[in-house]
Amino acid sequence: MEKHELIEIFKKNFPFWESMPEHDRETFIRSSQHVNFRKGANIHDGASCTGVILVKSGSLRLYILSEDGKEITLYRIFPGEMCILSASCVLESITFDVFVDSEENSECIVVGGCAYEDLARRMPEAKIFALESALGRFSDVMWVMQQILFMSMDKRLAIFLLDEAAKNGSDTIKLTHEQIAKYMGSAREVVSRMLKYFTTEGIISSSRSEGIKILDKRRLRSLV
Amino acid sequence: MEKHELIEIFKKNFPFWESMPEHDRETFIRSSQHVNFRKGANIHDGASCTGVILVKSGSLRLYILSEDGKEITLYRIFPGEMCILSASCVLESITFDVFVDSEENSECIVVGGCAYEDLARRMPEAKIFALESALGRFSDVMWVMQQILFMSMDKRLAIFLLDEAAKNGSDTIKLTHEQIAKYMGSAREVVSRMLKYFTTEGIISSSRSEGIKILDKRRLRSLV
Repeated sequence: MEKHELIEIFKKNFPFWESMPEHDRETFIRSSQHVNFRKGANIHDGASCTGVILVKSGSLRLYILSEDGKEITLYRIFPGEMCILSASCVLESITFDVFVDSEENSECIVVGGCAYEDLARRMPEAKIFALESALGRFSDVMWVMQQILFMSMDKRLAIFLLDEAAKNGSDTIKLTHEQIAKYMGSAREVVSRMLKYFTTEGIISSSRSEGIKILDKRRLRSLV
Repeated sequence: MEKHELIEIFKKNFPFWESMPEHDRETFIRSSQHVNFRKGANIHDGASCTGVILVKSGSLRLYILSEDGKEITLYRIFPGEMCILSASCVLESITFDVFVDSEENSECIVVGGCAYEDLARRMPEAKIFALESALGRFSDVMWVMQQILFMSMDKRLAIFLLDEAAKNGSDTIKLTHEQIAKYMGSAREVVSRMLKYFTTEGIISSSRSEGIKILDKRRLRSLV
């Protein structure tokens, strides 16, 4: 990637870029890596400090993991957005481990955690920006928690299917029950049972080869 | 409350107190209220900016509320600790509503949200302190979420303690956290944290010399 292109991305993502001392900008540029992640690749796993990840194209999925390997998706990160929880050395108050996978082939810029941490120690704006970004995600997570705890399964699944359809611009959702369960933080059995119910109600059709097809979008919307 | 007593409390709670300009200190003192909350009283309800609440005695409970009135306790705030999520005007990145009740008769100092916000706009240390405090609670909330979603650990530990008590014909369990972790196939840190949670809930008491004493067997059974 050309240097000027990198600078444009930094300008857009870091509101404090213009007031950064020249040598810090150089350090940022030097410590950054332009990385293409394959679909499904694990980018960040818990304890390490991977750095601040800026998504140029594709999408990332951030999740937590239970002792016995269950995943809960907390949120996704899309082009133009950034992942700050992967820069754990900047965020000492975060004591839980998160994992980040590439959900599609994704093009990213990874700013080294040390470079950011070093800047944040000297430049309050950079520190505040990191903390506020992380705290904004706290709100996302609370939303997920409320979805899971307070909402009934039919409603959650309806929202998920409608979201997926809108995201992909298609009424066919090519995900297995297993994958849907993983994204929703639920068990496969629960998802399969609810999908079967939707099928008998004529809301969707589901097959191994074709995936899930929304047949009655109005009915699905009425559940939300 | 005497002014010098209030200043002592501020010194202890706000690491930036010493570097605060004199007139800001005066504003803090003027904007603070010394309040005694009755057990069960609602102190903060969602959208408003109540301010920063410092707990002198008693305890507060912070929770979220579903549309149909279900509550989820996120964490409790004890003497010497402070509640920052009730100062919503300082934390713009927090977009969800939290509620705070007094769980016992509690003596608190409430620092006006406006005074804090005004200071935080001019003094990065105050801003960073508020953000870091909030982010620290993010970790507590993730822990609650993991407990609820991945279930098992509280349930497993409750079963273990009840089994041990029945086996020995005594409500006192003379095992170290390390030993319990080993028997349960878990990590000591996980067991210690859950035992601490049981302690704050008044379900057990735990000491190095006496071991673990079950105080509320009914509560413990209800977890199973």
